[in-house]
Amino acid sequence: MTQPLIFYFDFSSPYGYLASTRIDALAAKHGRDVIWKPILLGVAFKTTGQTPLPMVPLKGDYSRHDFARSARYHGIAFRQPTVFPIASQAPSRAFYWLNERDAEAAKQLARELYRAYFLDDVNISNPSDTVAVAARMGLDPAQVEAALNDPVVKEKTKTEVEAAIAKGVFGSPYFLIDHEPFWGMDRFDQMERWLALGGF
Amino acid sequence: MTQPLIFYFDFSSPYGYLASTRIDALAAKHGRDVIWKPILLGVAFKTTGQTPLPMVPLKGDYSRHDFARSARYHGIAFRQPTVFPIASQAPSRAFYWLNERDAEAAKQLARELYRAYFLDDVNISNPSDTVAVAARMGLDPAQVEAALNDPVVKEKTKTEVEAAIAKGVFGSPYFLIDHEPFWGMDRFDQMERWLALGGF
Repeated sequence: MTQPLIFYFDFSSPYGYLASTRIDALAAKHGRDVIWKPILLGVAFKTTGQTPLPMVPLKGDYSRHDFARSARYHGIAFRQPTVFPIASQAPSRAFYWLNERDAEAAKQLARELYRAYFLDDVNISNPSDTVAVAARMGLDPAQVEAALNDPVVKEKTKTEVEAAIAKGVFGSPYFLIDHEPFWGMDRFDQMERWLALGGF
Repeated sequence: MTQPLIFYFDFSSPYGYLASTRIDALAAKHGRDVIWKPILLGVAFKTTGQTPLPMVPLKGDYSRHDFARSARYHGIAFRQPTVFPIASQAPSRAFYWLNERDAEAAKQLARELYRAYFLDDVNISNPSDTVAVAARMGLDPAQVEAALNDPVVKEKTKTEVEAAIAKGVFGSPYFLIDHEPFWGMDRFDQMERWLALGGF
């Protein structure tokens, strides 16, 4: 019962961003670590036949309203990005590249990338913007840029995304506590009880 | 600020059923009444291009697991119906027919229909099963059966569903507090704060 939680998220996902600001504290409260795993929702949607939320009629309009309202409800700073949604290959590759060297630094990079996108309106789907965010953290821009084009890093990212889908991941945020799946920022209440009681 | 809440739901929706057991108490706590409005998600899905949740790969399996877990979390009795999802014309028409006569009795019928489907595994998409549930409440079975085939009742139901979609309703449960929309059993926490503060 001391396995780390797994936190799957897409860098383009507002609810993933909201969850990213809270998941480590929730897990720590129950003596758990968190493994972060960016995914590419576009690839998952090919499996499930889903349309990105903002493109669904009616639901898309509601969602844009709900992103900001949910952020206010939870007291999390949020600004709707101008370009939305975005392809999240560049930030995901940067993450998995750094993760092989230093998992804590990779988490910190993910937080900075999320903040750049959802607070500063930086389009992190551009490799140059992802590199700039990494550089501000003190990482070598040339190395990060090389990593984004490295076939090994691309393959690693692809493998992680496929492994996530094979485990049933279809959305963001998506969590595994031991083998129990939870989808959505709005399952934090159930996760809290699950962590406290080991099930219910 | 004393307008009734509007509660949209589909008789085939597990989250709609869960919400139906709680919404009147939540509203009453804040001095509000609730207007119940059954909808036909199948019709809404034609507008949004969505697939019924249980049919979506990965998401469908997760959802079936989440229905039962969410019911346990909230302490609400629930049994996954054998036939699921179902077309909900018959119970919706029975509701709108009775609603024109007695709104409180119509709510009570809705509760009984939900219980029949989600506790007793009665397939309320069959007109005869909807009639039987209504008869147990003391309604005249011949009158209810006639209502289900009455073109005026069919038209009233269709009009209500179209009006809901025109207001942006795309899922179940869906709520309007004044003009503020909330989708899902998992927005009760936000609704509670909205009712208390009149916004946030």
